[in-house]
Amino acid sequence: MRFFSDNAAPVCSQVLAALGAVNQIDTAYDGDRWSQQLDGAFSDLFETQVRALWVPSGTAANALALAALCPPHGGVVCHRDAHIQNDECGAPEFYTHGAKLALAEGIGAKLTPESATAVLDRIQKGVHWVQPHAISITNATEYGLVYTPDQVAAIGAVGKARGLGLHMDGARFANAVAHLGCAPGDVTWRAGVDVLSFGFVKNGGMSAEALIFFKPELADATLYRRKRAGLLLSKGRYLAAQLLAMLDGDLWLANARAANAGARLLAQAAGDRLVHPVEANEVFLKATPEEAAALRALGFDFYDWAPGEVRLVTSWDQSEAAIRPLADAISRL
Amino acid sequence: MRFFSDNAAPVCSQVLAALGAVNQIDTAYDGDRWSQQLDGAFSDLFETQVRALWVPSGTAANALALAALCPPHGGVVCHRDAHIQNDECGAPEFYTHGAKLALAEGIGAKLTPESATAVLDRIQKGVHWVQPHAISITNATEYGLVYTPDQVAAIGAVGKARGLGLHMDGARFANAVAHLGCAPGDVTWRAGVDVLSFGFVKNGGMSAEALIFFKPELADATLYRRKRAGLLLSKGRYLAAQLLAMLDGDLWLANARAANAGARLLAQAAGDRLVHPVEANEVFLKATPEEAAALRALGFDFYDWAPGEVRLVTSWDQSEAAIRPLADAISRL
Amino acid sequence: MRFFSDNAAPVCSQVLAALGAVNQIDTAYDGDRWSQQLDGAFSDLFETQVRALWVPSGTAANALALAALCPPHGGVVCHRDAHIQNDECGAPEFYTHGAKLALAEGIGAKLTPESATAVLDRIQKGVHWVQPHAISITNATEYGLVYTPDQVAAIGAVGKARGLGLHMDGARFANAVAHLGCAPGDVTWRAGVDVLSFGFVKNGGMSAEALIFFKPELADATLYRRKRAGLLLSKGRYLAAQLLAMLDGDLWLANARAANAGARLLAQAAGDRLVHPVEANEVFLKATPEEAAALRALGFDFYDWAPGEVRLVTSWDQSEAAIRPLADAISRL
Amino acid sequence: MRFFSDNAAPVCSQVLAALGAVNQIDTAYDGDRWSQQLDGAFSDLFETQVRALWVPSGTAANALALAALCPPHGGVVCHRDAHIQNDECGAPEFYTHGAKLALAEGIGAKLTPESATAVLDRIQKGVHWVQPHAISITNATEYGLVYTPDQVAAIGAVGKARGLGLHMDGARFANAVAHLGCAPGDVTWRAGVDVLSFGFVKNGGMSAEALIFFKPELADATLYRRKRAGLLLSKGRYLAAQLLAMLDGDLWLANARAANAGARLLAQAAGDRLVHPVEANEVFLKATPEEAAALRALGFDFYDWAPGEVRLVTSWDQSEAAIRPLADAISRL
Repeated sequence: MRFFSDNAAPVCSQVLAALGAVNQIDTAYDGDRWSQQLDGAFSDLFETQVRALWVPSGTAANALALAALCPPHGGVVCHRDAHIQNDECGAPEFYTHGAKLALAEGIGAKLTPESATAVLDRIQKGVHWVQPHAISITNATEYGLVYTPDQVAAIGAVGKARGLGLHMDGARFANAVAHLGCAPGDVTWRAGVDVLSFGFVKNGGMSAEALIFFKPELADATLYRRKRAGLLLSKGRYLAAQLLAMLDGDLWLANARAANAGARLLAQAAGDRLVHPVEANEVFLKATPEEAAALRALGFDFYDWAPGEVRLVTSWDQSEAAIRPLADAISRL
Repeated sequence: MRFFSDNAAPVCSQVLAALGAVNQIDTAYDGDRWSQQLDGAFSDLFETQVRALWVPSGTAANALALAALCPPHGGVVCHRDAHIQNDECGAPEFYTHGAKLALAEGIGAKLTPESATAVLDRIQKGVHWVQPHAISITNATEYGLVYTPDQVAAIGAVGKARGLGLHMDGARFANAVAHLGCAPGDVTWRAGVDVLSFGFVKNGGMSAEALIFFKPELADATLYRRKRAGLLLSKGRYLAAQLLAMLDGDLWLANARAANAGARLLAQAAGDRLVHPVEANEVFLKATPEEAAALRALGFDFYDWAPGEVRLVTSWDQSEAAIRPLADAISRL
Repeated sequence: MRFFSDNAAPVCSQVLAALGAVNQIDTAYDGDRWSQQLDGAFSDLFETQVRALWVPSGTAANALALAALCPPHGGVVCHRDAHIQNDECGAPEFYTHGAKLALAEGIGAKLTPESATAVLDRIQKGVHWVQPHAISITNATEYGLVYTPDQVAAIGAVGKARGLGLHMDGARFANAVAHLGCAPGDVTWRAGVDVLSFGFVKNGGMSAEALIFFKPELADATLYRRKRAGLLLSKGRYLAAQLLAMLDGDLWLANARAANAGARLLAQAAGDRLVHPVEANEVFLKATPEEAAALRALGFDFYDWAPGEVRLVTSWDQSEAAIRPLADAISRL
Repeated sequence: MRFFSDNAAPVCSQVLAALGAVNQIDTAYDGDRWSQQLDGAFSDLFETQVRALWVPSGTAANALALAALCPPHGGVVCHRDAHIQNDECGAPEFYTHGAKLALAEGIGAKLTPESATAVLDRIQKGVHWVQPHAISITNATEYGLVYTPDQVAAIGAVGKARGLGLHMDGARFANAVAHLGCAPGDVTWRAGVDVLSFGFVKNGGMSAEALIFFKPELADATLYRRKRAGLLLSKGRYLAAQLLAMLDGDLWLANARAANAGARLLAQAAGDRLVHPVEANEVFLKATPEEAAALRALGFDFYDWAPGEVRLVTSWDQSEAAIRPLADAISRL
């Protein structure tokens, strides 16, 4: 039974079915009728006019977002545990042509207005120092914590006061919204977010993420960057179809709720072992090597995260029945 | 009836079926069992040890190939009508960090040893001038011509004598091999090719191309570049599966033969109207605007290519019966 | 006697003296009192408000200018014989992060409205094709021809109609102005030039060129690019002093006139041998290898330029007496 | 009396004189007779075969050095207070095309084998994580501390064991050597340094630093990068002459000794106020805002460095008599 990554989960049946449904002749790249629906569909979801582009990976979405917000000689404030800093092999630096990430502190990989301000205040004005152009936050964070609309807005306000853009890495945005129970617009543009990387792959998709521009004009140059990076697939309708299938009937939300429910089940079993509150679909657990080995001996797969700490990730496809044995095993540790 | 692009064609059923077959839990990125089979499967096909990477687009494959062969301060010789020069929005410059393309002449977008040498001889030695590091050719070319193994080898020899790498843009490599009837290795590594962009999407695939390194060590840094560009999809098994499905039973070759046959049918009907010999699946036809309009009035879609010239592209899924009406209409012009 | 390059000429005495005059304590980088005078001094010269930055080389000036006018995914139209295309080892691509140069034709390395338009018209609209963002011309050109204000304005108009910026590579701008006898503003901003690389080194300077922004706001990001490229020397006053010394009493113009006069002397001697009209300080001469050898045997140094063609460059420090022997030798060929 | 930066100091008379001495016709770029002497002169100094390139700034030297050691997708370990991280506006990222700096701890901006190892051990193997390719240290450090040969060797050993290159930012290398009293080779190549940025400008030079490759083959591609960055000045002999003048009779060492002596004088006066031991020409002093104001009221200029801390920098041209008043004033605080 695997709990090591939501990337390991299969693709949900509606997404696979959608691939078959668009398997017909149409215009190449993003000229097809499905790609052309994305702006409208996501504008409806977010209750404002957006530009929505499919891209084949979350790393690509993040890097294109940052390139839209920050020039090569600029900087982006993010948490020191952010995915863009640690896990993308320098994709932000590649796409921005060498912008720097300025690293901020915060519990659970969560930036605060104070920690962002602390970093910003340290940057002297002048050409010798990389000037900040944007802030990037991850919602849900790399440790499964969720920013509320108010928290996002507070960080957004710090940035706006200095003329900075705001990017949200939403690799697990669905899980965040499912936890918050708010409208997707509440925790994004209404709170100051300019660009969102809206993840679908971890949540039941196959190969399409959505890059959402709440400032539509930012999309213009991004279209060139997407092409120039080899990210403009020639049969784009097979990516658009995935996104439309997951928006249909709010499948994205249902999948995220299922994954979150699984994590809550584990969290209840974990009790004092929890390293962070469980708000999305990740559970960080204190466990000795012996305890971890005991769980693995029962057939559960997961990553060691830090000494004495393991990470369990639940997925959209795991029912309560599928999760229960691990929850029970944790209880019995 | 569309003849404007093989990118408009649907995905073949075996590829779609393969997506369903791998729709199960497995390791993320390219750690899954299917991605791990690619080196072996392509080494078998090419009868030599290769490294084979999936990438989601032909532009990405080309740009990664060039980045593997050419440093930022170097240059790549290619035909002035090459796709990498004209149709990729500067992807080679992005991935190589600003290398220059040095443009050579040649009929039908085909480089010759002489035209490549002419460009190379013009480049002075010294730090003021961008020095060549590679040659890139397209097989089949942008005008549907096919390089024979001997022709590739002759260009390869020009390059090797100067220490240059050789890249083949094989967006329609399958069509070229189908035309040549040779072993895939004959027109690639045996003729001096170091890296091949092996196209599948135009030939019935959905979202996976193969990047083949005949010098396996060139793949090492490419793995980092692929990740850094956001091209390492997290559910890579759905890309690997497409490639394996098309290798299985030489489906790639059967599809290409079908497309080529359709083009031959049109070529026979076209007679003196042909701008280039038809060797792959593209037909360039002399046609007045009135003649083009007449064909379109019959329901045939295609691109105007140049004044008095149209381009017709046939696809893997078009049977003789599907092509015949256009052939007849051309005959009647 | 050397005629191979004006870069080989010494530094004029006023420039050397200026280095001594500023050899005192002052603020580092460009905070010193001399660097701070540049905007004013060049604004006076050009009769409009400009921003003027010292840079240590013409290649740096050109590349920074292009980076100010063109994004990484854009293109710049220039002559196929332009210095930025041929002789800067890819500096434009480095500074623009991979923008492409689109090459136009024209006699004597001179762009025309028609040749620029021809290149621009060939570029399709859309994300697959690198879109033009600027035009770059060289005045005087690489073949010693001079654009008149009207000619510049005509090209500028072509660009402005399409929203393009206009850069002038003025490595020999002084020679062009000396030939034209116009105000420096006439052939630059009044004719639509946005950025000028104003060369001083070939004209008696040592290590400082001026980068002039007629749209002052373009200088803002350039200040960061200059620093980031290691071009912001810590003792900037020694560069500023060179520029101020050459502006003082129009030394730049006197030096250029002297160099041009030398070239005219050679041109008169050359008669029918001239490949191009001589308008600045370069003379391109038809000469057989035997004739070239004969001149060299007399002690004259110069470059072979093309088969049967040699290039003679005169410098600010060569008096008529110094030039006369070569003129005579040419006459006697 | 200024103590805010050694960049504010004038140029020493020998350097100015050297400019006059080379003010004659010679080959452009680095083909002149003086530039051609650099390899030999620095090989003599370092007692091993080196390649030595002039560059116009320390930032350029550092960035070119890192580009020679680290690919775009790689990383460089340095101290979090390093000049390359904080004060060069992202030059390393520009020249390396987006490599990342991995930041290590250490007192007085000094890396230790332990702190470097701690950073290196945190980097997971695999394509998701930027892999280290080099270590960069500053000698003397940004806080005026000097690495001994043994200390450099210990860090070098950490790097070599992992296949990493070692760069030394020697903006104040002369001050370090003057402090150590060792041979220049002892604290560089004999201790594992591959590339040295050898600073001259702060030490009495005008506009030339030396980039020293102890692995000569690393210079080959650097020559192209230097040109491509616009750093290859056309009248290179005026840079070479500066370096040769400072090597002549070990002027570089005499100047550094003078600057260090000045700092020692201040250090003796400062006593317990010292934040760091004074080993080079920088003195970091605890001083209340009132105390700082009192010193400034006496005519002494310097930077506030941190709350309650000021920085005093002495220069090659300040005699004991010139320093003494400040020393006395500090004593009296």
